[in-house]
Amino acid sequence: MTAPMFTWPVRVYWEDTDAGGIVFYANYLKFFERARTEWLRSLGLHQSALKAELGGMFVVTETQLKYLNSARLDDELLVTAQLTEKGRASLIIEQQALRKTEHATPQLLCSGSIRIGWVSAANLKPQRLPQQLLTRLP
Amino acid sequence: MTAPMFTWPVRVYWEDTDAGGIVFYANYLKFFERARTEWLRSLGLHQSALKAELGGMFVVTETQLKYLNSARLDDELLVTAQLTEKGRASLIIEQQALRKTEHATPQLLCSGSIRIGWVSAANLKPQRLPQQLLTRLP
Amino acid sequence: MTAPMFTWPVRVYWEDTDAGGIVFYANYLKFFERARTEWLRSLGLHQSALKAELGGMFVVTETQLKYLNSARLDDELLVTAQLTEKGRASLIIEQQALRKTEHATPQLLCSGSIRIGWVSAANLKPQRLPQQLLTRLP
Amino acid sequence: MTAPMFTWPVRVYWEDTDAGGIVFYANYLKFFERARTEWLRSLGLHQSALKAELGGMFVVTETQLKYLNSARLDDELLVTAQLTEKGRASLIIEQQALRKTEHATPQLLCSGSIRIGWVSAANLKPQRLPQQLLTRLP
Repeated sequence: MTAPMFTWPVRVYWEDTDAGGIVFYANYLKFFERARTEWLRSLGLHQSALKAELGGMFVVTETQLKYLNSARLDDELLVTAQLTEKGRASLIIEQQALRKTEHATPQLLCSGSIRIGWVSAANLKPQRLPQQLLTRLP
Repeated sequence: MTAPMFTWPVRVYWEDTDAGGIVFYANYLKFFERARTEWLRSLGLHQSALKAELGGMFVVTETQLKYLNSARLDDELLVTAQLTEKGRASLIIEQQALRKTEHATPQLLCSGSIRIGWVSAANLKPQRLPQQLLTRLP
Repeated sequence: MTAPMFTWPVRVYWEDTDAGGIVFYANYLKFFERARTEWLRSLGLHQSALKAELGGMFVVTETQLKYLNSARLDDELLVTAQLTEKGRASLIIEQQALRKTEHATPQLLCSGSIRIGWVSAANLKPQRLPQQLLTRLP
Repeated sequence: MTAPMFTWPVRVYWEDTDAGGIVFYANYLKFFERARTEWLRSLGLHQSALKAELGGMFVVTETQLKYLNSARLDDELLVTAQLTEKGRASLIIEQQALRKTEHATPQLLCSGSIRIGWVSAANLKPQRLPQQLLTRLP
């Protein structure tokens, strides 16, 4: 499956860094989440509205990340999101964080694979992905 | 009013620091919150139980903090909480973060005053502090 | 002194919220920081470059925040920054977080006053604000 | 290799939760980090001292996490750390977050595998794990 690649810009602020002088590794999960949220929004899927209308929400069930290079304060990143697997109750999204450089090619900082499942907002039990949602996905 | 002083230990981890090599200033609000939570728990007030039983919760309505000295990775802090004002719908708690030192006296890092109000969990509207709660406070 | 008002958009993501269903109050300090950083950048002041060139950095020395209304997931906020005091070694910036609404007027969520001081990056000792920096400020 | 299992208690506070009412998944990386830090400390390895003495530091280079159950405000967790691979330049630590329950057996919430590498603090280049460090590891 070759879904189109979605890209979202992220700027590195003080809040994102740690005493190593670089972006704290756990924060790439936040950057990835922002890009996934905006990717869903670009498809007409607003998570707060989904919760209100369908009584369900996405939860992250699995993450695999590799950290290759470090980002620093003031760096401009590009974060990608690409749907690579569409199951009955979960999706897999491949994501990358890259640093904009003066050169043509951005530098890869972190790549990851995120599985998200659909659950009832009331009891957090896994559920099938609603049809209204599936039809919006590429 | 001279309520007793409650003290809670906090260790500084990577997650707490920023690229300046010190604890990110916003994180003192987290340290203060942990100490307030444990202070309430020491009085028999568990916030998740309060929400379930009384349908209400505390929200922070005002914070004033002064930053005097910096904490670094691996530092051991002591965080205090002391009730200084008990109103109908809100409390003021004075708090300090101090660093343990080899000397007798810990070093003051950050002092603050936090006002918390009681609101309905359903609509976030301010409410009077429940009697069950007030009777537990010093 | 009536310096111009700087405004920066902030979107609310899962990372910003807490179990009360609203933005965790400590995170407004992050939103304010992002707006201050972008305000400085708009004046040609890049903090990582300032550190490299002048050997100093800004640290937050005092914060006063009032929380008036709550923000929720997916909300679009506007965060302002306005310089209101320019001392020898510190600045005071007044800031607001407002929620965009369907109406003309955004709703005020949180207002604050942030004092930032200039310190040596090496030893964190307070220093006079460098002339190169002062001349850029409004 | 069967290294002993290290266990560290973690309490869930407001700061750890999100608007889904549960612990925000990225925060398990923080909980795991705290447990790894305390595991290293229990072996006599203090990271701030290592940086000062050896000029190096650990960075996380790979994380794999599975989320099985959710934690909520006020929950008491146990976080484990167990060294499962000791390479020339990196370690793999298997970790779990479990919730204390009234029953004998804690409930597994999240399990993960974290690879950490040793780098020069000056330029972040990967380096062999120092002998002083290796001899302390089980």
